[in-house]
Amino acid sequence: MNAHASLFTCQATDGSARAGTLITPHGVIQTPIFMPVGTLGTVKSLDPHDLYAMGAQIILGNTYHLYLRPGDEMIARRGGLHKFMRWDKPILTDSGGFQVFSLAGLRTITDDGVEFSSHIDGSKHFFSPEKVIAIQTNLGSDIMMVLDECVPYGADHDYTAKSLKKTTAWAKRCRAAYTRGETGNQLMFGIVQGGFFKDLRTQSAREITAIPFEGYAIGGLSVGESKREMLDMLEHTTPLLPSEKPRYLMGVGAPMDLVNGIRNGVDMFDCVLPTRNARNGTLFTSLGKVNIKRAQYREDDSPLDPHCSCYTCRNFSKAYLRHLYVSRELLSYRLNSIHNLHFLLDLVKKARKAIFEGRYEMFYKHWQTIYPE
Amino acid sequence: MNAHASLFTCQATDGSARAGTLITPHGVIQTPIFMPVGTLGTVKSLDPHDLYAMGAQIILGNTYHLYLRPGDEMIARRGGLHKFMRWDKPILTDSGGFQVFSLAGLRTITDDGVEFSSHIDGSKHFFSPEKVIAIQTNLGSDIMMVLDECVPYGADHDYTAKSLKKTTAWAKRCRAAYTRGETGNQLMFGIVQGGFFKDLRTQSAREITAIPFEGYAIGGLSVGESKREMLDMLEHTTPLLPSEKPRYLMGVGAPMDLVNGIRNGVDMFDCVLPTRNARNGTLFTSLGKVNIKRAQYREDDSPLDPHCSCYTCRNFSKAYLRHLYVSRELLSYRLNSIHNLHFLLDLVKKARKAIFEGRYEMFYKHWQTIYPE
Repeated sequence: MNAHASLFTCQATDGSARAGTLITPHGVIQTPIFMPVGTLGTVKSLDPHDLYAMGAQIILGNTYHLYLRPGDEMIARRGGLHKFMRWDKPILTDSGGFQVFSLAGLRTITDDGVEFSSHIDGSKHFFSPEKVIAIQTNLGSDIMMVLDECVPYGADHDYTAKSLKKTTAWAKRCRAAYTRGETGNQLMFGIVQGGFFKDLRTQSAREITAIPFEGYAIGGLSVGESKREMLDMLEHTTPLLPSEKPRYLMGVGAPMDLVNGIRNGVDMFDCVLPTRNARNGTLFTSLGKVNIKRAQYREDDSPLDPHCSCYTCRNFSKAYLRHLYVSRELLSYRLNSIHNLHFLLDLVKKARKAIFEGRYEMFYKHWQTIYPE
Repeated sequence: MNAHASLFTCQATDGSARAGTLITPHGVIQTPIFMPVGTLGTVKSLDPHDLYAMGAQIILGNTYHLYLRPGDEMIARRGGLHKFMRWDKPILTDSGGFQVFSLAGLRTITDDGVEFSSHIDGSKHFFSPEKVIAIQTNLGSDIMMVLDECVPYGADHDYTAKSLKKTTAWAKRCRAAYTRGETGNQLMFGIVQGGFFKDLRTQSAREITAIPFEGYAIGGLSVGESKREMLDMLEHTTPLLPSEKPRYLMGVGAPMDLVNGIRNGVDMFDCVLPTRNARNGTLFTSLGKVNIKRAQYREDDSPLDPHCSCYTCRNFSKAYLRHLYVSRELLSYRLNSIHNLHFLLDLVKKARKAIFEGRYEMFYKHWQTIYPE
């Protein structure tokens, strides 16, 4: 297809909320969408069939982790990440920046990039903007992310402003390193930073959206701030992004964060929360959170969620799920992960329907009563 | 059906090897068969769908573990183990004796049974012959096993002879506690012991087969002896069991042990070996053992076993399986377990076919070259 054709189509809006489609090399995504995180070439405890069955449309891979193990060049020799892990639908890869910047004490940031030590064997590595794009090219993801600095919560205005300069300069270098339709077919998204300062968020949005990316992400949220602060920054930043491109709120995955994000015009989300919570026995349901290890479920023969059609809810009781969790059985991780991901995928599907039917505010208010903040 | 009708039918023999069918309350099993072990109401890392898909006909549950957690009475209130774990095919439960006798230092054997401390919380419990039958009645398994003492490898003639007396007395008490067609519909198998003394094996077989069980097991093998010693005892004991009842070799699951067992007239096997090996990265294939963590598989795009039709081999490469194993990903346990169990189920299916076609010796010789001892 023509590299200049519109990849994103907004099909319906309801207030700021929008429903659309995004064309990627491995197929069309219906937005809003939640992306399960498959750090190391697998969404933890699940196989591709589990993901297809729950209706996952796109998953996320972590560049930092895959670069270290098994290595992006090894994956390229296998024909890319899709073939390696047997997932035929779209994949988004992050830039690795977030993981590297989280390696406190093990990394040095310069204008040119970031030097870091592997958490596996201590070996030294360097990520430049060009390097993370080369890695993501090797992985062959459908959507690449630019290298950015996600400033820690509590960073002051001065640090955040300086960091912003780097993030913008790196975004330009990433774009220069790869042009869709020439270098290859992958999409590339820019990332707006700016910490918790509205002037810096405005500046970042202006600078990043001046670069022609196929989509724009909001980074640096859900890093320790209150829900109120997150929402405040989201409400400020989302309108600064072009309406004709997809918007991606990074690292956010609590049910109400999705509902709020969509209400503010966000199209895409990812987070380890649903799978990590699942492995810790915390499950999202249409009636609120369930902590499956609680004694009250010991002899509860009902499914986790009476309104859920996932494999877990169709087949197993809370009593059985509690037994598996308490016994630390491996099946517990998988059945819980299937449910939590299905729940979020179903939530965004229902959000999409509500947008088409012009009743998003009702949808929003309903979920506010289930997951009050 | 009539409690006195024949549950086991021998359909074909080839030398001592035999192919047959065994009727149980949850369906007919085609023998010879391997039974995956589902200790705590799940075959580790797998769900019932995985087991159906690989052609598992019957699985095993562990009475000791289920009694302690979640409790046999709790399972009875759920409608039994089948309903609790959503497995509709046959289940065999052991008596719990083997696990209890393995609790060295934590148990006291008397003529009446065995007192032991829970490995979970140290609480005191007592298993009598009647008690383990009551527990297995609560679990609602298709085949119950009598309480026996599995004597440790190296036990002398005197200890083994005394132990034998208890095992026979307990077998009689188990049979007296439950009569198929009157008390319920479950089958009960007796267990021949006798350590590594042929005179005691003969005595045990005579005493146990004098009690009318629906099947007979050979216990106390694969406890530390050499392959030669195991085979020696097997060759001695199997002919002492009635040909019109199914024969079950307990705790045996290496490929050649199955091939040898079937050659000696054994119909049923169980073992944790295939699933435990799978979790340790050791995989059985039609070309021999594969240790998936070896560097030679790093970039090997071929399936584990070119002749295998399991879900793992149909979808994933050795390179991917090695990556999952090295990265300690949860999916590794499941994909490896699916393969190893499928391999053994396929092996006994091929053995059955070879028996029908009168070429078991060729089959036996082929596998001897693949898994030399």
